[in-house]
Amino acid sequence: MRSARDPRDARLARLRASLEEAGLDAILVSSRANTRYLTGFTGTSSMLVVAKHETILITDFRYRTQARTECAAVAQVEVEGVSLWGRLWNVLPKVQGVVCVGFESAHLLHGDYQRLVETGIRWSWRATSNVIEALREPKDESEMVHIRAAVAIAEEALTKTIPEIAPGFTELEVGANLERRLRELGSEWHPFETIVASGERSALPHARCSQRALRNGDFIIVDFGAISGGYCSDITRTFVLGKADGAQREAYDIVREANATASSGVRAGMRGRDADALARDYIERRGLGAEFGHSLGHGIGLEVHEAPRLAKTVDMPLPLGSVVTIEPGIYREGWGGIRIEDDVHLTAEGPVLLTSISRDLQELG
Amino acid sequence: MRSARDPRDARLARLRASLEEAGLDAILVSSRANTRYLTGFTGTSSMLVVAKHETILITDFRYRTQARTECAAVAQVEVEGVSLWGRLWNVLPKVQGVVCVGFESAHLLHGDYQRLVETGIRWSWRATSNVIEALREPKDESEMVHIRAAVAIAEEALTKTIPEIAPGFTELEVGANLERRLRELGSEWHPFETIVASGERSALPHARCSQRALRNGDFIIVDFGAISGGYCSDITRTFVLGKADGAQREAYDIVREANATASSGVRAGMRGRDADALARDYIERRGLGAEFGHSLGHGIGLEVHEAPRLAKTVDMPLPLGSVVTIEPGIYREGWGGIRIEDDVHLTAEGPVLLTSISRDLQELG
Repeated sequence: MRSARDPRDARLARLRASLEEAGLDAILVSSRANTRYLTGFTGTSSMLVVAKHETILITDFRYRTQARTECAAVAQVEVEGVSLWGRLWNVLPKVQGVVCVGFESAHLLHGDYQRLVETGIRWSWRATSNVIEALREPKDESEMVHIRAAVAIAEEALTKTIPEIAPGFTELEVGANLERRLRELGSEWHPFETIVASGERSALPHARCSQRALRNGDFIIVDFGAISGGYCSDITRTFVLGKADGAQREAYDIVREANATASSGVRAGMRGRDADALARDYIERRGLGAEFGHSLGHGIGLEVHEAPRLAKTVDMPLPLGSVVTIEPGIYREGWGGIRIEDDVHLTAEGPVLLTSISRDLQELG
Repeated sequence: MRSARDPRDARLARLRASLEEAGLDAILVSSRANTRYLTGFTGTSSMLVVAKHETILITDFRYRTQARTECAAVAQVEVEGVSLWGRLWNVLPKVQGVVCVGFESAHLLHGDYQRLVETGIRWSWRATSNVIEALREPKDESEMVHIRAAVAIAEEALTKTIPEIAPGFTELEVGANLERRLRELGSEWHPFETIVASGERSALPHARCSQRALRNGDFIIVDFGAISGGYCSDITRTFVLGKADGAQREAYDIVREANATASSGVRAGMRGRDADALARDYIERRGLGAEFGHSLGHGIGLEVHEAPRLAKTVDMPLPLGSVVTIEPGIYREGWGGIRIEDDVHLTAEGPVLLTSISRDLQELG
């Protein structure tokens, strides 16, 4: 038995409305996150067909039990032993009234597209973009419960790890301890490779954990997240090991102020470029614009990078109900870097900060 | 300064020979693993063009320092602030003598393929398959060093974790401890989500770690790996918590014998289907063929699943020098499952087992 208000029913209904509006009889879903959003399936191998009256999930033997447990309430589950594509060509002709089928241009590989046009000749295939991703932008309450849980796990794990950060430990040791706590606290997996970047390595915005040992005077960037019910959190804090010097303090304060300005000023309905400018204009006024080389943020949800984007090239408005990161940073080669990243829910009442762990400059060790 | 015998030079030379043979003037590389193999670049965002005399890596601001450090010895690094595709259309016309360009059909998304045919109209684009993947199958000694290190890290981490497995611990706690050790021992990341599947959950070939507490009498499948220098190991062991009963012992022995038969019998040059049959025929003779629902194994290297495949549908021979998993398993719904997975190097002298941790039935706790 499932709840009378299974959110997947509402999602599938909204998708069917989108399909009808676009003149599509069905859509072939390739994206794992989109498949999970619509059906709850958590496996790594599937094809999903959503037609007017049918929802069909094709998966392989390995996921037989799991797929039925997760999706039988909303989808017809087809378990295939040899080829998911073979099963598609077997199943699709049985779905009535399907002529024009959308596929996901941003998720279907060229080689699989060739299968559509070579083997699926009896249907008319149309490239679609962002049909399901757009539905995913506003988060419903069942999703917010998971995102808040993912934030809580991440913050508790970091809080427990901070006291252990001391000179002599390697970045990898700090990362390993943080990751163990994330998992023990229930994070289903890691949304991305944990970043612990210290000293001059903190100037690399996407450094991995290395064997570098922490030293007094280092900046330490910790960028990580948790996953709960499939939903991600994404948080960054920057610490100084030992006493911060004047230059560190000055740069940190600029990033912190940029973060605060953007977190409090961001609104649903604002264009992505205008949200980005909240932090960028401030950093530019302080003369460090050239050191803020990435965009301000991105949506989070079933993926750690999803729509919308907060970037200077983006004209699209931020949807009401979306959850975005606010993560200004500055990076100075050979010296170090700072990034402060929060997760913010864009509600009708304004931005709600989901992250609460301190943004003050913390001198550790 | 780089070594006079940088393996990337040999790889690029072999790729250029493949391109010439295929009548291609250049190839656009989208796959991260293929990019890393050819250039050493470890970032997540890049486009690589390999032409007769040029190797050009386009990446974004975040990887500026890293890309130059990792690839400047073999590639011209182009750092782009706005659009990698925009930079491609700027750079490609400057490469002389390029008319026909290959792209990776199994890695290029449909939407990006549309860019090629709509914006890149002055070139002739041709779909390619497995051009670089085929080069990657035989491992050179520089690669074997990393694979052996990844096996050693994984085996040491498991050896340290086994004594802690006891009734009452959750799958997630066992997984978290194993993962922490993997990281502390230097694993760069995890090749896939660690599987700790106990009791009836061990019948799910791709279960994640759950909050299920271990109980006496459980089978416990632990499937995990390490990454060293980008190269993966992939190992599975199955334990019994407490005393194994007769049915558990009997099923375990069948899987163990199937594993031993296949590991000692597999040879370079054998077709994928014949390698698969080494284990499958034995399990079928013992009457459990229906419970061995996946294929025998797969190549490992820069990806944890790469060519070749050991499966009943595969006619391709296993290349000399490749490294493959041998992982027979049986899965009985509601009862449990067993999988024993080793990593094997297919040398001219026969199969060399890289994994050495015990395959005997271990009764833990």
